Amino acid sequence: MNSRTFQQLLDQKTKPIGSLGGLEELAVRVASVTNDTRPGTLSASLTIFAADHGIAEEGVSAFPQEVTGQMVSNFLAEGAAANAIAGELGIPVAVVDCGVKDVLVSREDLINMRLGAGTANSAQGPAMSQEVAAKAISQGQSYGRSLTSKIVCFGEMGIANTSSATLLANKLSGILIADLIGRGTGVDDAGLKHKKSVLERAAARTGRLAPIDALAEVGGFEIGTMAGAMIGACASNKVVVVDGFIATAASALARALAPGCEASMIYAHRSAEQGHTAMLEWLKAKPLLDLQMRLGEGTGALLAVPIIRASVSLFGMASFTDARVSGRSADK
Amino acid sequence: MNSRTFQQLLDQKTKPIGSLGGLEELAVRVASVTNDTRPGTLSASLTIFAADHGIAEEGVSAFPQEVTGQMVSNFLAEGAAANAIAGELGIPVAVVDCGVKDVLVSREDLINMRLGAGTANSAQGPAMSQEVAAKAISQGQSYGRSLTSKIVCFGEMGIANTSSATLLANKLSGILIADLIGRGTGVDDAGLKHKKSVLERAAARTGRLAPIDALAEVGGFEIGTMAGAMIGACASNKVVVVDGFIATAASALARALAPGCEASMIYAHRSAEQGHTAMLEWLKAKPLLDLQMRLGEGTGALLAVPIIRASVSLFGMASFTDARVSGRSADK
Repeated sequence: MNSRTFQQLLDQKTKPIGSLGGLEELAVRVASVTNDTRPGTLSASLTIFAADHGIAEEGVSAFPQEVTGQMVSNFLAEGAAANAIAGELGIPVAVVDCGVKDVLVSREDLINMRLGAGTANSAQGPAMSQEVAAKAISQGQSYGRSLTSKIVCFGEMGIANTSSATLLANKLSGILIADLIGRGTGVDDAGLKHKKSVLERAAARTGRLAPIDALAEVGGFEIGTMAGAMIGACASNKVVVVDGFIATAASALARALAPGCEASMIYAHRSAEQGHTAMLEWLKAKPLLDLQMRLGEGTGALLAVPIIRASVSLFGMASFTDARVSGRSADK
Repeated sequence: MNSRTFQQLLDQKTKPIGSLGGLEELAVRVASVTNDTRPGTLSASLTIFAADHGIAEEGVSAFPQEVTGQMVSNFLAEGAAANAIAGELGIPVAVVDCGVKDVLVSREDLINMRLGAGTANSAQGPAMSQEVAAKAISQGQSYGRSLTSKIVCFGEMGIANTSSATLLANKLSGILIADLIGRGTGVDDAGLKHKKSVLERAAARTGRLAPIDALAEVGGFEIGTMAGAMIGACASNKVVVVDGFIATAASALARALAPGCEASMIYAHRSAEQGHTAMLEWLKAKPLLDLQMRLGEGTGALLAVPIIRASVSLFGMASFTDARVSGRSADK
């Protein structure tokens, strides 16, 4: 069935036509992806892709690089914000090591997609080789296809990855660094000025780049793997829930590599990270939530899941005929 | 504990301070109401208050008056949008008859708080007596206190009740009818013009009014009972989730009658009904969602419940100390 047919189904339900606004649009979009209007069938999962970033050595983050590995341990111990929210919503969490510098937990607990011990410093040279960039995408694609849940949330962890995402967004969209840059998880005014000068230097190393070249030049491992996972999930009729700024940069990469896959993407929220709004506009994406969150980890994507499920539940409503409810006076 | 203490608890968790923005504010607000930070303990319920409105005879709604009773039957048969969404979220639904003209189902299935067979036409004279208005509030208060769930969603059903809500909002706030009026569940341009002339005539019968007088003059039974329920729920440490335009008018009445009760109110969403934004601004309320919904029934309030629960789940996160995660570089 196509989206028009799904909208027609909703138009027969016991509510004025269009009166559930964005929730109806969402229901139609989701049903068009899954081709399934049965309520209660949409299983969901969260995958957190983690990796380190060489550009962290330029001092672009408020937190030290060791935090990436520590947070990976925290995810596995179910102590992070993503775990709390996922636990509340009954959504399982998987953690993928795409190249964390210092992994502190048993590697058995992690899904291993390591592409190195962190990227190289993209302010100095390419973050990774073209071969590694291509591998990030392809391993992600396999992973995305292999997921069994129908709604897939993707989050990330990596100290300095707002820097990599800013550079990637700049290379793909041409939007100025000044319009994309933000405080990440919390640099102060001086830190922001320094971050801007580092990123402008890194961006100046190259001109606009084709997608794989952009990934290779500016990274990161987790962003490329997530972009691949988005492509694989979209290709296998799953609903991809896009989290914040970094996931949106990954989605831009996925869309550049696999045009059309945006039909399966739901943008969960508008992040407090300044560049997110610029990227959402460039991608013509309308996010569901605006709660001024800027943590990442997939926390925003998780919050969208009950709304997505609720939207599909509308297909289970009674029709005017079923319920013997009168239509509009004007239609009589 | 006060809200500052709750914020301090969140500030020790493994996330940059404030990085969950509005979700943290919500967690603090909810914990301040319930005085409970344990995740997973927040039971929720939806109550739909239904009644008819004499002003419907002026032709202000796109739907005939019989739809109120038909939709009450639909709620009890679990066929409406509110049922679909509540079912998906595992939230029980109760239906209260505050004065539906034609009740088509066994009255045993309904909670009986009937104040008459619909209000009188407020374009001609008072919708109800002062005694009935006071009874609406008091029966609602008892009901709100008696609810056992911690998160209470209140929805409504009543053909022409956007007209009553518009008049009530006008009487309480002084905002012009022209700035409050909207299409309800779907009147067209000519219908909107007619609705405006009817409401301006009804509003002109009286000046600004004290809360109970306003309810008596313009109605309706379900709006007054809902306002009472909000007061009762707030007084018994429950979180009241305010739905759309009509529920917001009820909340304005509750706040006028019981100043301070707004501390327990969470505004769920910004409705597509034009007057909602004006009322939210007047009430200094910041809604969680903006999905351009305009159905009522508590559909917007329901969607806020998982977000409210997710916010409280953050208190279950590990602290930096628990998880041995390093703090900000700058803090070292």
